[in-house]
Amino acid sequence: MKNPFKTLSSKIVYQNPWIRVREDAIIRPDGSEGIYGVIESHDSVMVGAVNEKNEIYIIQSFSYPAQKWHWELPAGSSDGEGILIASKRELAEEAGIVAETWQQLGLTRVADGLMTEKMATLLATDLTLGDKVASDDEGLINDGKFASLDEIHQLIAAGEMDEGQTITSLYFIEKWIKENA
Amino acid sequence: MKNPFKTLSSKIVYQNPWIRVREDAIIRPDGSEGIYGVIESHDSVMVGAVNEKNEIYIIQSFSYPAQKWHWELPAGSSDGEGILIASKRELAEEAGIVAETWQQLGLTRVADGLMTEKMATLLATDLTLGDKVASDDEGLINDGKFASLDEIHQLIAAGEMDEGQTITSLYFIEKWIKENA
Repeated sequence: MKNPFKTLSSKIVYQNPWIRVREDAIIRPDGSEGIYGVIESHDSVMVGAVNEKNEIYIIQSFSYPAQKWHWELPAGSSDGEGILIASKRELAEEAGIVAETWQQLGLTRVADGLMTEKMATLLATDLTLGDKVASDDEGLINDGKFASLDEIHQLIAAGEMDEGQTITSLYFIEKWIKENA
Repeated sequence: MKNPFKTLSSKIVYQNPWIRVREDAIIRPDGSEGIYGVIESHDSVMVGAVNEKNEIYIIQSFSYPAQKWHWELPAGSSDGEGILIASKRELAEEAGIVAETWQQLGLTRVADGLMTEKMATLLATDLTLGDKVASDDEGLINDGKFASLDEIHQLIAAGEMDEGQTITSLYFIEKWIKENA
């Protein structure tokens, strides 16, 4: 099917080391001219580290945009690296976990109308627990633990696990657990 | 728990009618100074219109940032209106459906590290099907239909329903269907 938009020109209107904001001049599907602002960033990874009891490792971290603490899965920017390298690094830094077995379960877009970022969901199994690897996450993570799917559903219902990237990854991880239990 | 960041100052570095990009000067949890770019936008709504066979209405629409067609749930910006008003409007414009019964199932954040936007997931039941209400979505939506949860899981597995906002809303809608089936 045809792209219903026409892009006339593109310019970068803001950038910092993590995001780039692009403003395109466009012709909309209805023929009118306008602009479209798009947020570009490195693709990201989110890791479901699942132990032999089918519990998932969750962390309590601080969201600067939301100005609040919340529970999520270990995650981060790929920083332009490969997905597996970034996933191993995030799991070591945010959870202190090394996993022997890795599998990509999903690749999804983060914010449909605004962002280009794609997020890979990786499953990590055969886990060895250790100390967190030092990183610039220092002070951003308050707590971490393995939680059952039931506990996770309760955190979501209570609004303590309230961000869509984690809930998106959990879709794939829960599906895997149910198919492999 | 304490906010581990300190915000020194804030400035708007870009805005258009839909988004505002804010750059804050901050002191990070580790004591170093830096910046944080935050994308501000109106909160959004996503609607699960569920019929008496527990099928969910999905639409095939074009994502400009991704430059691709994909399946999703009817959704849009609240444009600063109330959540229920915006949800009724989006369902009428994108699906041509009027619902008698509405219920908010979830309120989630869209992109944890970058955006302030929150998305409400609304359940719409007792549906009356009609013609789509004219809107500026003209040409952005190619197809629409009711789909079972199984069909939706297949679209996700095939990468044809690949954006996190829809998968997040489906978490709440699928939970509701299973509890009310």
